[in-house]
Amino acid sequence: MAGNTFGQLFRITTWGESHGRAIGVVVDGVPAGLEINKKMVEGELKRRRPGQSSISTPRKESDEVEILSGVFEGKSTGTPVSMLVWNKNVDSSSYERIKNLPRPGHADYLYQKKYGIRDYRGGGRSSARETVGRVAAGSIAKALLKRYGIKIAAHVVELGGIKAERQDFDKIMENLEKTPLRCADLDAAEKMLEKAEIARNMGDSIGGIVEVIVKGVPPGIGEPVFDKLDADLSKALMSIGSVKGIEYGSGFESARMYGSKMNDSFLIENGDVRTETNNSGGIIGGLSTGMPIICRAAVKPTPSISKIQKTVDLSTMSETEISIHGRHDPTIPPRMVPVAESMVALVIVDHMIRCGNIDPDSLLG
Amino acid sequence: MAGNTFGQLFRITTWGESHGRAIGVVVDGVPAGLEINKKMVEGELKRRRPGQSSISTPRKESDEVEILSGVFEGKSTGTPVSMLVWNKNVDSSSYERIKNLPRPGHADYLYQKKYGIRDYRGGGRSSARETVGRVAAGSIAKALLKRYGIKIAAHVVELGGIKAERQDFDKIMENLEKTPLRCADLDAAEKMLEKAEIARNMGDSIGGIVEVIVKGVPPGIGEPVFDKLDADLSKALMSIGSVKGIEYGSGFESARMYGSKMNDSFLIENGDVRTETNNSGGIIGGLSTGMPIICRAAVKPTPSISKIQKTVDLSTMSETEISIHGRHDPTIPPRMVPVAESMVALVIVDHMIRCGNIDPDSLLG
Amino acid sequence: MAGNTFGQLFRITTWGESHGRAIGVVVDGVPAGLEINKKMVEGELKRRRPGQSSISTPRKESDEVEILSGVFEGKSTGTPVSMLVWNKNVDSSSYERIKNLPRPGHADYLYQKKYGIRDYRGGGRSSARETVGRVAAGSIAKALLKRYGIKIAAHVVELGGIKAERQDFDKIMENLEKTPLRCADLDAAEKMLEKAEIARNMGDSIGGIVEVIVKGVPPGIGEPVFDKLDADLSKALMSIGSVKGIEYGSGFESARMYGSKMNDSFLIENGDVRTETNNSGGIIGGLSTGMPIICRAAVKPTPSISKIQKTVDLSTMSETEISIHGRHDPTIPPRMVPVAESMVALVIVDHMIRCGNIDPDSLLG
Amino acid sequence: MAGNTFGQLFRITTWGESHGRAIGVVVDGVPAGLEINKKMVEGELKRRRPGQSSISTPRKESDEVEILSGVFEGKSTGTPVSMLVWNKNVDSSSYERIKNLPRPGHADYLYQKKYGIRDYRGGGRSSARETVGRVAAGSIAKALLKRYGIKIAAHVVELGGIKAERQDFDKIMENLEKTPLRCADLDAAEKMLEKAEIARNMGDSIGGIVEVIVKGVPPGIGEPVFDKLDADLSKALMSIGSVKGIEYGSGFESARMYGSKMNDSFLIENGDVRTETNNSGGIIGGLSTGMPIICRAAVKPTPSISKIQKTVDLSTMSETEISIHGRHDPTIPPRMVPVAESMVALVIVDHMIRCGNIDPDSLLG
Repeated sequence: MAGNTFGQLFRITTWGESHGRAIGVVVDGVPAGLEINKKMVEGELKRRRPGQSSISTPRKESDEVEILSGVFEGKSTGTPVSMLVWNKNVDSSSYERIKNLPRPGHADYLYQKKYGIRDYRGGGRSSARETVGRVAAGSIAKALLKRYGIKIAAHVVELGGIKAERQDFDKIMENLEKTPLRCADLDAAEKMLEKAEIARNMGDSIGGIVEVIVKGVPPGIGEPVFDKLDADLSKALMSIGSVKGIEYGSGFESARMYGSKMNDSFLIENGDVRTETNNSGGIIGGLSTGMPIICRAAVKPTPSISKIQKTVDLSTMSETEISIHGRHDPTIPPRMVPVAESMVALVIVDHMIRCGNIDPDSLLG
Repeated sequence: MAGNTFGQLFRITTWGESHGRAIGVVVDGVPAGLEINKKMVEGELKRRRPGQSSISTPRKESDEVEILSGVFEGKSTGTPVSMLVWNKNVDSSSYERIKNLPRPGHADYLYQKKYGIRDYRGGGRSSARETVGRVAAGSIAKALLKRYGIKIAAHVVELGGIKAERQDFDKIMENLEKTPLRCADLDAAEKMLEKAEIARNMGDSIGGIVEVIVKGVPPGIGEPVFDKLDADLSKALMSIGSVKGIEYGSGFESARMYGSKMNDSFLIENGDVRTETNNSGGIIGGLSTGMPIICRAAVKPTPSISKIQKTVDLSTMSETEISIHGRHDPTIPPRMVPVAESMVALVIVDHMIRCGNIDPDSLLG
Repeated sequence: MAGNTFGQLFRITTWGESHGRAIGVVVDGVPAGLEINKKMVEGELKRRRPGQSSISTPRKESDEVEILSGVFEGKSTGTPVSMLVWNKNVDSSSYERIKNLPRPGHADYLYQKKYGIRDYRGGGRSSARETVGRVAAGSIAKALLKRYGIKIAAHVVELGGIKAERQDFDKIMENLEKTPLRCADLDAAEKMLEKAEIARNMGDSIGGIVEVIVKGVPPGIGEPVFDKLDADLSKALMSIGSVKGIEYGSGFESARMYGSKMNDSFLIENGDVRTETNNSGGIIGGLSTGMPIICRAAVKPTPSISKIQKTVDLSTMSETEISIHGRHDPTIPPRMVPVAESMVALVIVDHMIRCGNIDPDSLLG
Repeated sequence: MAGNTFGQLFRITTWGESHGRAIGVVVDGVPAGLEINKKMVEGELKRRRPGQSSISTPRKESDEVEILSGVFEGKSTGTPVSMLVWNKNVDSSSYERIKNLPRPGHADYLYQKKYGIRDYRGGGRSSARETVGRVAAGSIAKALLKRYGIKIAAHVVELGGIKAERQDFDKIMENLEKTPLRCADLDAAEKMLEKAEIARNMGDSIGGIVEVIVKGVPPGIGEPVFDKLDADLSKALMSIGSVKGIEYGSGFESARMYGSKMNDSFLIENGDVRTETNNSGGIIGGLSTGMPIICRAAVKPTPSISKIQKTVDLSTMSETEISIHGRHDPTIPPRMVPVAESMVALVIVDHMIRCGNIDPDSLLG
């Protein structure tokens, strides 16, 4: 059933399979008057592209976007922005061979069971390539947020068990793209890289944790009691493939804290109310507090590994083995960074419009 | 903006404030022919009621439900089921005193900031009493799932840092209501109780972790790519007050696992495909696998504590202190158990209908 | 399936059966700071109440509303406003007798077919009493629109083939409640009354046309291409029982006009663009033009008549006859006036919020 | 705000401007296993194409569709079906000249007012070319309905005041495409053609009425009380440009009928309940009755006419005149036929899935 649309007032619909003709997104609800161009969208798409380092797959994916509607003379017109990226240089031969062998950790078997048919080439709709549409849409959301002084940055804070030291927001922005790991602690990044390469050499993979920080969100954004800001962010992040956990501020650690320690005390600063600490991660009662929003997503190791795994042959309903060759990242978090930023940006924009903080019709006049 | 409705086809709308006239819910999309009665609803409401033990507030809350529509001669008719519980014996005097002093860890300040007005009595709409509507609706969802052989149980697996030993599903069902802790490991429950009482005596509070297990969900439930089953469950659970984290199966631990360990191998059992392990927590690619669904929610310590905390006086915009007296649980997870079960049940029912596994119109004929 | 909720950002959910315990509505998305009280709601409910004249049923319906949530110290708080009216003095005995004889022109048979069960007493959910919730919600929408200088009036322009002379808006407002017909042409009203009484005496009923006029809507309200203002208004009006047609401005007559006559020319008035004529009925391309919005709904004759009609006995699946006694209006349009106003008000408010013309959070500060 | 998506479970999102790069649609919720191919889609697109006769514009529009996703080896896979048609041979020069002169009867001025910017070329988003996406999606909906024995046909029943004689369904199907008028009464068609040509020669245009008939819908489809089948159909049809009125069965005429005449009596036929007449147009209480669904849409005359009209110059805010040259149909109804069929098909499919009459996941197995 229809589940490919996300958002209420700033709403995206993604479409496309990994090895189909193209992959794309329709963004509905972009206020008129926003500058939108290929360069801006491709800048973000490039960040999620594979083939950027030894730990990302050497596949060459086309990232040239076509903006097909909703933009006139360089600006949004308030009508839907449709964007697509053609799928080029797809090689589906390796998938032909395993079309009856569902890959462990992948949705192959479940798509087959649910729909009775599936495009098995490159993982079809459940491929990470589906995130192209999310990131293209996210680039518009981020450009819009920028107009309101809101900044978003995601970064890798843990990989294969190696934890990064906490960095301040400016340092994260500065270091984010310095290494293919997208870890702002450059020493940790080096160790992470090593660990990822070892895993790859073993035919294995590792997981990690991506943190997203949003600065500049005014207080009161979010809608009780179900469309709370953290509820919608959780749905957004959990909808990204391979995410297995989400937490805000002190997160799971808060389960082990005393209330007197966890509670963020209020104080007055420059005539405004703010909190002394930010254990809540910038959201209380489902509403933004005005403090930075901080959430983390736990990412499982890449399911595609060359190590031999047990699986079944659906054509004979018998047990067998599978070894997945091909060009796969040994770890996902670094490439998930722009996807996580995008999903968070989409939620924030949607809620900013819902709260009346962004005019839904036009940024002009 | 309107955020008080949850679900697509099985859809609830809750309303009511803690110290208002009443609190309630409208459940739309209940298939006709389901037995619904007061006893069944009140059975669940009783589980979330305070005043059940030394670690839950001695407040007496009315839990007598009125079923106002949608049920005829004991059965649902396919029209909306409206239910309400009157608020009786409310004493708002203690709130009058602190109406300008936002309680740390609560949404008081943010409601005031967002709306410019708020019902401060008993926390108003952001009170945990709001969950009465969720649990009443959840009792219907659970009764419906029972018809399809689906069972849901939540239990406390960690409190104040004390971890319970893993128990099998039957043991959880057996022990769940044996202690006010709702922890199936009875030894751990004892230690948790002790810890909670100590916290209360210190004027403080502790957090914990609630796990929800769902058995019997057929494979293929969930809607890629945004309305994934785990995405919707995350939104559902994160919309419960005080939840700060969510994880499935191996969850955050999967960030530290190798792919070869994390991946659940497929095998054939009784002619059906299933997985050897269940690190995925019963959901892969946003679709149920047919294995038990396992998710955990991290719950922060009760924000209302009698210890002195720093806050501000909104009437004078100056800094001050607050000590919250009154009848508050020193820990939330045990009472969150029926709420978590309810939210999960609502999501599963909604997705079962969306997938065509439950007839949306009628269970009759 | 769930179909009892209407609106996107100003959203109502109605519930209740004609002879059930109560009937009500939850209004979600009311901006904080609006004065809401029983008197205002009951003022509108009174207008839809039967028993007001010789041509409306002498049934006594309770119209005392209880406002259960969302209002604090006389003002909305931004949380859901739940309202109910108890069903008193219901006499279901006459329905017991015909529970297996579906009434022609009614939904009895279809509810039975769809759900396999139905509350047959008083028409159950498909009774006109369901509109109590719509009108209660509409009274809030109208109060909100009033703050923005928008006025709504519906009136009967045709009944039993008798057409009223066109009146200007002020005259309509002045004469609207002068007769039970709610026809602003008082001469026509007299003839209509006569015709309705004759129909009733024959054991028959007549239909008519209700016109709704909205003044003060700013230009540009509505959302292309599906959520056009007239598209949403059509859904709203067609969802009222017994409506069989909808038209705007010249409506069906425009099918017979030349383009040069139909097109509303633009001109400048007081520095603003407006149109010379208003054949479009205030909506072009799905957007309000700033001119009065004018729509008309064709209403079929009351289906409940005492004349003998052919029907079937569902218990024996044989053909039989039915004569519907009891207290039924011989014509619906006069009592539909407040319902039509309410549905239109709900759509206009919803779209005003969607367009950013009303702050969704608060009217305060 | 986002208004370019239609439907709940079978949901389309259209995008594109008349003279933009392309125009298209994403169809979400197509059950897996449906045969979909270019030929089938283009067959419908060809029906709405201009340049087919003396009364339709000689513009050559490309109607070659690209199916970009959701189809694998000729069958739907349950994932979104994205389709586009490139805009070729667009000539925007004539629009450049009138970009500040809003055309009477068009939405030009309102888009400019609402968004502060607009793509004025060819009418931009408010052009009838937008319906390409609707018809492409409609071709899938119709193919799906065909599997369930449901047939849809629209035809012109009145044009420029000339009324066609009522024809039975088979005759309509037979004659529908015999003349460019799409009027099944071939004699009337001839007179309509004459009238349209006279209007065109005068630099003017005429309107008409399109009727849509749906056969084979089972009883009980539709969702009380707001998502009634006729309510959703009304929204669907009213969202088509130039429609100014909608009616079902006896429609506006029912306002002049007695109840005893209007009511459709029940009888037994082959062991099933049906109605003797069909004044209700196949829908009572918002639910399909099992009888043919009959609705009519009043279509205003083409607003683009070459006759001189009064308008304003937005750049100088002064009054002026406009004469619209170019290639415009003198009447819209014949070309609206496939659009109306499509919108009705989309609503019926959506409601069939909502009622559980079509499996949302798969037609396979």
